[in-house]
Amino acid sequence: MYDGIVQDLIDEFGRLPGIGPKSAQRITFHILQTPSFDVARLAELLTDVRARVRFCDVCGNVSEQDRCSICRDPRRNPALICVVEDAKDVSAIERTREFRGLYHVLGGAISPIAGVGPDDLRIAQLMTRLADGTVQEVILATNPNLEGEATASYLSRLLTTMQITVSRLASGLPVGGDLEYADDVTLGRAFEGRRTL
Amino acid sequence: MYDGIVQDLIDEFGRLPGIGPKSAQRITFHILQTPSFDVARLAELLTDVRARVRFCDVCGNVSEQDRCSICRDPRRNPALICVVEDAKDVSAIERTREFRGLYHVLGGAISPIAGVGPDDLRIAQLMTRLADGTVQEVILATNPNLEGEATASYLSRLLTTMQITVSRLASGLPVGGDLEYADDVTLGRAFEGRRTL
Repeated sequence: MYDGIVQDLIDEFGRLPGIGPKSAQRITFHILQTPSFDVARLAELLTDVRARVRFCDVCGNVSEQDRCSICRDPRRNPALICVVEDAKDVSAIERTREFRGLYHVLGGAISPIAGVGPDDLRIAQLMTRLADGTVQEVILATNPNLEGEATASYLSRLLTTMQITVSRLASGLPVGGDLEYADDVTLGRAFEGRRTL
Repeated sequence: MYDGIVQDLIDEFGRLPGIGPKSAQRITFHILQTPSFDVARLAELLTDVRARVRFCDVCGNVSEQDRCSICRDPRRNPALICVVEDAKDVSAIERTREFRGLYHVLGGAISPIAGVGPDDLRIAQLMTRLADGTVQEVILATNPNLEGEATASYLSRLLTTMQITVSRLASGLPVGGDLEYADDVTLGRAFEGRRTL
């Protein structure tokens, strides 16, 4: 629809997740029409990120060094490991400021449909980390969906032989939510996991 | 939340229109985690687009040359000019394949609230194009909202002294839409502009 390179940039933005053709066009025109938008900086960051950012050797989180800032932090409790599917989940949990232990990023969840088995995840690396006996509790924070639950139950079975407490994040009503609008399964879980006051 | 450069890229994506912090994070991780994603190409396109793309000297559409591909096309009817607010509107109209004339991009619409007056738009350039008598009809295709209507009525008053037909795109029910869900103003316009069969 547009002259060569403009359409190329629209197509390239359209390849990014969550950006449809209309958004891609809007972004491209924003870049074209906003003189103050620093194109060079975005271009440089894109190249730099790919060149410099890697994944932490220990936990699999994103990092610019061999070990990520959380694994390097001596104030974090090494007896507590929170297992998550994705590096994005680390930052979601960090924002809560509830957790002061370490993380382990699996790099996905078990999904027979998508062809992802236990060997495709960083489970062997987790077992290695647990081998020396430092870790006392493993919190399974995989997503509360089919794949996440399957992964959590697989891991909990794997860890029963070890002297480690295995826990799972609570399921229930979202804070600020409305009981009326909760789905059946969530409401059921909220009953199941009810706490005595 | 993330180590330096990852957060920088998230922030930079977040500056683009329609991309919130969550989408920016999702895009950044997609780029980090998808080895097949051609980062170098996106970075190069960004720089190239800014360096090479400019606006057509005649109509104001995006172009890689002094005159855009539509203005250069000898098969287009030079007696017909369609006035639009934005270069994005040109491609929307081109997709309909209904119009074979030329365009004129105003670069916005008159909006006292946003401080945009007639002098901020490419209206003088339009008058210059109309001066030689080639153009027989001007189609005002500004948006059917407050600013667009104000711009259209300003232009139609400006053009009354000239021997040029001035028309406006029809307002009415969207094709495939439901009468029941149409808003009052649109439904009123549909009555007003009804056609005898």
